[in-house]
Amino acid sequence: MEQLDLNATAGIWTELIAEGRLDAVAEQAASLSRPDLVRTLERLPVTDRAVAFRLLAKDEAHAVFERFDDGLRAELFSSLRDDDVVRLFDALDPDDRVHLMDELPAGVTHRLLQRLSEEERELTAPILGYERGVIGRRMSTEYVRLHPGHSVGDALTLARRRGDDAETIYVLPVVDDSLVLVGVVGLRALFLAGSDALVADLMTAPISVSAHDEEEAAARRCVDAQVLAVPVVDREDRLVGILTFDDAVRIIQSAEDEDASRAGASEPLGRPYLSTPITRLVRSRAVWLFFLAISAALTVGVLDYFEDDLAQVVALASFIPLLIGTGGNTGSQAAVTITRALAVGDVRSRDIGRVLLREVRVGAVLGLTLGGIAFLVILGVSLFSASYTAPIGLTVGISMLAICVLAASAGGAIPCIAKSLRIDPAVMSTPFIATFVDATGLIVYFLVAKAILGI
Amino acid sequence: MEQLDLNATAGIWTELIAEGRLDAVAEQAASLSRPDLVRTLERLPVTDRAVAFRLLAKDEAHAVFERFDDGLRAELFSSLRDDDVVRLFDALDPDDRVHLMDELPAGVTHRLLQRLSEEERELTAPILGYERGVIGRRMSTEYVRLHPGHSVGDALTLARRRGDDAETIYVLPVVDDSLVLVGVVGLRALFLAGSDALVADLMTAPISVSAHDEEEAAARRCVDAQVLAVPVVDREDRLVGILTFDDAVRIIQSAEDEDASRAGASEPLGRPYLSTPITRLVRSRAVWLFFLAISAALTVGVLDYFEDDLAQVVALASFIPLLIGTGGNTGSQAAVTITRALAVGDVRSRDIGRVLLREVRVGAVLGLTLGGIAFLVILGVSLFSASYTAPIGLTVGISMLAICVLAASAGGAIPCIAKSLRIDPAVMSTPFIATFVDATGLIVYFLVAKAILGI
Repeated sequence: MEQLDLNATAGIWTELIAEGRLDAVAEQAASLSRPDLVRTLERLPVTDRAVAFRLLAKDEAHAVFERFDDGLRAELFSSLRDDDVVRLFDALDPDDRVHLMDELPAGVTHRLLQRLSEEERELTAPILGYERGVIGRRMSTEYVRLHPGHSVGDALTLARRRGDDAETIYVLPVVDDSLVLVGVVGLRALFLAGSDALVADLMTAPISVSAHDEEEAAARRCVDAQVLAVPVVDREDRLVGILTFDDAVRIIQSAEDEDASRAGASEPLGRPYLSTPITRLVRSRAVWLFFLAISAALTVGVLDYFEDDLAQVVALASFIPLLIGTGGNTGSQAAVTITRALAVGDVRSRDIGRVLLREVRVGAVLGLTLGGIAFLVILGVSLFSASYTAPIGLTVGISMLAICVLAASAGGAIPCIAKSLRIDPAVMSTPFIATFVDATGLIVYFLVAKAILGI
Repeated sequence: MEQLDLNATAGIWTELIAEGRLDAVAEQAASLSRPDLVRTLERLPVTDRAVAFRLLAKDEAHAVFERFDDGLRAELFSSLRDDDVVRLFDALDPDDRVHLMDELPAGVTHRLLQRLSEEERELTAPILGYERGVIGRRMSTEYVRLHPGHSVGDALTLARRRGDDAETIYVLPVVDDSLVLVGVVGLRALFLAGSDALVADLMTAPISVSAHDEEEAAARRCVDAQVLAVPVVDREDRLVGILTFDDAVRIIQSAEDEDASRAGASEPLGRPYLSTPITRLVRSRAVWLFFLAISAALTVGVLDYFEDDLAQVVALASFIPLLIGTGGNTGSQAAVTITRALAVGDVRSRDIGRVLLREVRVGAVLGLTLGGIAFLVILGVSLFSASYTAPIGLTVGISMLAICVLAASAGGAIPCIAKSLRIDPAVMSTPFIATFVDATGLIVYFLVAKAILGI
């Protein structure tokens, strides 16, 4: 598959726009596939992006806008003309609309809501009633609902009539007279049944989520259940919306983006890397880096405290990066595994006892092996070098064992504790653990050294 | 939502099985929701899991088996009776069957294939023709294909007749007489059109993938296109299978599992944490940890080389963990961001120049700030302590700047280089970079120290 050079294309567009040759840009844009068009637009400077975007046909503009990341959508809104904004906002699905509103200044959203058509406003209002972070805020309100008494023929007619607007007609929730959810039926089942059969006979017990459920948990339930959509109900079990599989996947993906960023100690960008300004990249990393540097300053204090011991046996310094590096690696191995297991539900926070028991054993096996190797290598070197001695080898070996056990346990326990305190485990895990292990690892190392070397 | 204590349930089952009270286990199993049942089975010891599994009703057993991770499926196979295995294997979808075969010993798969029904063997054979890692190996061969000349009525009849077996009837590929893919049509479009209309009028240009495409790339294309399924074609554009949205999501999820594990320097488990034996946990981490420890041994060499300088100014040792820790963090921040951007296609490996330009600037801003702060703090402390002096402050500050620039650039460049060499960027990124930054960072630190302190 021949890949387009997107940077070159974006560069050409910027030049064409500067020369005022908008026709040429429009022509090139029309010749690109939609994914390539989206990625080219992403690589343009902000103002050029708005100019190029306005050149797109109405439907294409709408489809392209839907594929932009949240950050880019909000940015584009602020650089488009008012009537373009109103038109785009009205064309969005209600759930996407609310999600975008969460990125815009309150003044702007208020003004936009007022200019929304009556029908769209009614579809949007229920979603706005839920706070950010729960699935009610991300559900779709455009669905086709059935009654158990409907015949298959009725149901198919209803689906056909309302099918153009609905988010999906492949999963149809069934409600009783007071709108309480009583089942779901798939279009496939309706379609394969005789037209006289009743919905009540075909429907199955619904796997539903509560509108107040945390959004990631609800999305995972939908994906785990392997259904194309799950109904969303309120506290009285009344149907209030629907969550489709693709929206669920998008929620999970963005949660995982966040987890991946935070495991690497930076905040998620919420927009493509190459169209993120340098200042924003710096900001996404600075907070974490400064926080970690302050914790790392702890290690300066620890080493300062042991400076006299270090002056006596300078060779001890040589093993500091090896020991704390291995500790950091062991800790982050455990943390990544447990954070992931917590996210997908393989482990729950109450399993902390079992996790600790396992991690202590894993850490001990790894530490014994690595520590043993380190001891033997230093013993070998001690035959040729005066700086290294068997007691130093023993010190390093024992410290390695202790640090591995400590790091694996901390890496296993901290995510569980974070989860039970309702803090995102990904935030707490890798970088935090590395820093914790650095400081405590050094203390262990010097205490072992003092005991063995008698300094 | 009340959560079941899965560990307690699993414990009770183990006791009941030991006492031979299988009826009680069967009864409890029947009362659990499917997800809870799956998780309880996962937490049982291997042999108890096989016993409990055999107690399930046939359909339930099949559904539960489909939800197990690959590792667990293979393990269960080896502890079930032969006829159970044959029955389960026959009930699997062809794509799941092949995926499982990749986990089983060659002798077993050969024997199982021979006992497969004729029909299932025919559906399985095309998938087996593709090598591991390409999407042909993961596609489904159970689809309903249409002809452009079909009327909507014909098409719906065909979908209805073959609908029970097909993986999906929501996306129907359209082929010409020589089986070349010419379009796709959604059930929804068929369903909303008049029954006299022709498939040729309703079908749209297909977004397809080649059977030889790398599996993760193909899966991302399906998810990015926001369609429920994409047709899979051979090199002559003939239809050979279909990739559904949920299978695509599963492929992406398992690729991301892998990325997350490797970013944390361990191999993916391919099974739930709590049912993974300790020895397997150790193995999943040992290779990486030993590899990293060997690279970290480089730092011992570097420090040994500078031991005389260190003996002259022992205070230099105090800043080693701070400097290399910050370098490691800066590098992994960049690496995680770029690895993710490469995975989702925001950045391509040929963008390496732009990435480097950005990372040097980000690293410089972060390094100047942190280095400046470090210099000022040490300057302040030097007023009260004889160990720390202004030149040491300058050394630490300048080293911090250099290390941050170096680490951010390495973190940005290494994933791009890995990608262009067709190595998984996640494998190369975080841990590898941390170790690289440790050794080069120390060299920078001591060279700066020698220049400024004149040692």
